[in-house]
Amino acid sequence: MERYDIAIVGSGPAGLEAAINAKIRNKSFILFGSKDLTTKLLKAPKVNNYLGFYGKTGAEIKGEFEKHLEFMGVELTPERINAIYSMGDYFALMVNEKMYEAKTVILATGMSYSQPLKGEEEFLGKGVGYCATCDAPLYKGKVVTVVGYNKEAEEEANYVSELAAKLYYVPMYTGEYKLNSNIEIVEDKPVEILGDDHVNKLVLSKQELITDGIFVLKDSVSPGQLVPGLQIEDGHIKVDRSMKTNLKGCFAAGDCVGKPYQYIKSAGEGLVAALSAVSYLDGNR
Amino acid sequence: MERYDIAIVGSGPAGLEAAINAKIRNKSFILFGSKDLTTKLLKAPKVNNYLGFYGKTGAEIKGEFEKHLEFMGVELTPERINAIYSMGDYFALMVNEKMYEAKTVILATGMSYSQPLKGEEEFLGKGVGYCATCDAPLYKGKVVTVVGYNKEAEEEANYVSELAAKLYYVPMYTGEYKLNSNIEIVEDKPVEILGDDHVNKLVLSKQELITDGIFVLKDSVSPGQLVPGLQIEDGHIKVDRSMKTNLKGCFAAGDCVGKPYQYIKSAGEGLVAALSAVSYLDGNR
Ligand SMILES: Cc1cc2nc3c(=O)[nH]c(=O)nc-3n(C[C@H](O)[C@H](O)[C@H](O)COP(=O)(O)OP(=O)(O)OC[C@H]3O[C@@H](n4cnc5c(N)ncnc54)[C@H](O)[C@@H]3O)c2cc1C
Ligand SMILES: Cc1cc2nc3c(=O)[nH]c(=O)nc-3n(C[C@H](O)[C@H](O)[C@H](O)COP(=O)(O)OP(=O)(O)OC[C@H]3O[C@@H](n4cnc5c(N)ncnc54)[C@H](O)[C@@H]3O)c2cc1C
Repeated sequence: MERYDIAIVGSGPAGLEAAINAKIRNKSFILFGSKDLTTKLLKAPKVNNYLGFYGKTGAEIKGEFEKHLEFMGVELTPERINAIYSMGDYFALMVNEKMYEAKTVILATGMSYSQPLKGEEEFLGKGVGYCATCDAPLYKGKVVTVVGYNKEAEEEANYVSELAAKLYYVPMYTGEYKLNSNIEIVEDKPVEILGDDHVNKLVLSKQELITDGIFVLKDSVSPGQLVPGLQIEDGHIKVDRSMKTNLKGCFAAGDCVGKPYQYIKSAGEGLVAALSAVSYLDGNR
Repeated sequence: MERYDIAIVGSGPAGLEAAINAKIRNKSFILFGSKDLTTKLLKAPKVNNYLGFYGKTGAEIKGEFEKHLEFMGVELTPERINAIYSMGDYFALMVNEKMYEAKTVILATGMSYSQPLKGEEEFLGKGVGYCATCDAPLYKGKVVTVVGYNKEAEEEANYVSELAAKLYYVPMYTGEYKLNSNIEIVEDKPVEILGDDHVNKLVLSKQELITDGIFVLKDSVSPGQLVPGLQIEDGHIKVDRSMKTNLKGCFAAGDCVGKPYQYIKSAGEGLVAALSAVSYLDGNR
């Protein structure tokens, strides 16, 4: 298996700027993210505070970013990382059943603005999980509920449904669903997660589901969940001015390391994270 | 006299991005810098690591920055600040004989790559100075030498020549000089500054000048000289992640706060500094 110099997780301004600099510095790297780069660009009506661009929509700026990637020959791998494990001198990055390896990692996952469900944090690890495919083996022959915030959650639901006795899918978006036929779709609003030592029920506005496990699959997993052992401070990844985290070889940039939540701040930090990773790889630890 | 909310010192990417955000946040501000914005853009042959721009020259990107300023109605005051004094609840910014006032300051002065002259640091404050007009009264009736690194130094030399008994001007650039007729131009390379308790001689490669004081006027004064009391660490202004310096109401961004020396890192920090100044002004100290 190829072991990359740098794995970049996230395709917003922070991840893209990190990738461009990894390329310029001649490192082997892989950039994980979304085909749309980031919905936070796509949805911005007008952007005036990114020096050099004015009066443009987010979608137009996204177009310029895409042309920049193409010009530099930077490719995007449209996969969602479920978990990252520090293995000593390298990192293992999990995408469902697949695994990637890299000597350094740059976390540029952005911030999810969605509020946790009532009970979600309380039952985390006691039946509530954020990575269905990672924990699937625990639910062999059991009843599982997946609360999916995006289409990518459907893949995870399909995978788990092959092991579980029963799978409920609660979509938090509208559109068509590509789900295995044995999955029961529940179009209703989740209200609260209940249980005693362990989850046993999901309360929705019109019904209740008896369930052994609940997976909440959002646009971004919280970084502390994504990377076990990562130090978090006030809801953000703790970094120093060189964008180092507490884990050796792991850097972070963008919204996930703190406010203000802004494009050019994210991009600037992405550059610093990339150059710090390069310097780490070159032995200046 | 108008007391601005924010004075921004420097017109590279850090200062410009700070100004744009000060404007968006509806603060009164003044942006000091050079008509050319920054020679570090002007001189860059090809820039590929500023997300959204690729294959462009620095001069072309400078053009985009200028259009952005114009679009936003951001004006530049082409003056060079010689000294900044913290006055408690505001700052006084000196431009030769003129003074400006602002409640907060953002330092975005970049880094000067020129090496100090031999003896320059040793005799600093003992006859060597960086602000001729500030210290001019000390040299009434005396012999003064000005080592000028740019055309702006000529104005300072002219001012001092009205008080001094004799003024030597050593230009470190080529071109035409607009100097008072009583100034003696010495086209020679400075080698070393000599003295005992106090400066008494400038050694050049072909001659020596007996002098009571020497002003070294570079593209950027070191920030510690510019702002008395400012905390410096390893040659850079010390800031935290919100771009605060050790002086209340004084923020900094860009090359002057540390490596890597790069456009988008500077711009990102300029944004953070501006938003921190806004938050300080709004009472969230
Ligand atoms: C409507 C709107 C308007 C805005 N307008 C402005 C504006 O005018 N000016 C401004 O400066 N800012 C604006 N912002 C804020 C700005 O969008 C964010 O600060 C910026 O996008 C953050 O960049 P980032 O790179 O940190 O993360 P993001 O842009 O959030 O990108 C993160 C990316 O990583 C992906 N990702 C997350 N986790 C994983 C994983 N595990 N595996 C693979 N990929 C993953 C996500 O899908 C996403 O694509 C706006 C935001 C919104 C929502
Ligand atoms: C030839 C060259 C090529 C480069 N190429 C690249 C590249 O490809 N990519 C990249 O990312 N970076 C590049 N850089 C580095 C980049 O130029 C700097 O990191 C960037 O310009 C720093 O921005 P800044 O805003 O901190 O300061 P600067 O750009 O240095 O701007 C500071 C400004 O403040 C003014 N100033 C200073 N003191 C005062 C004062 N007391 N009063 C008023 N004004 C003052 C200065 O005159 C100057 O205009 C290059 C640099 C050079 C020299």
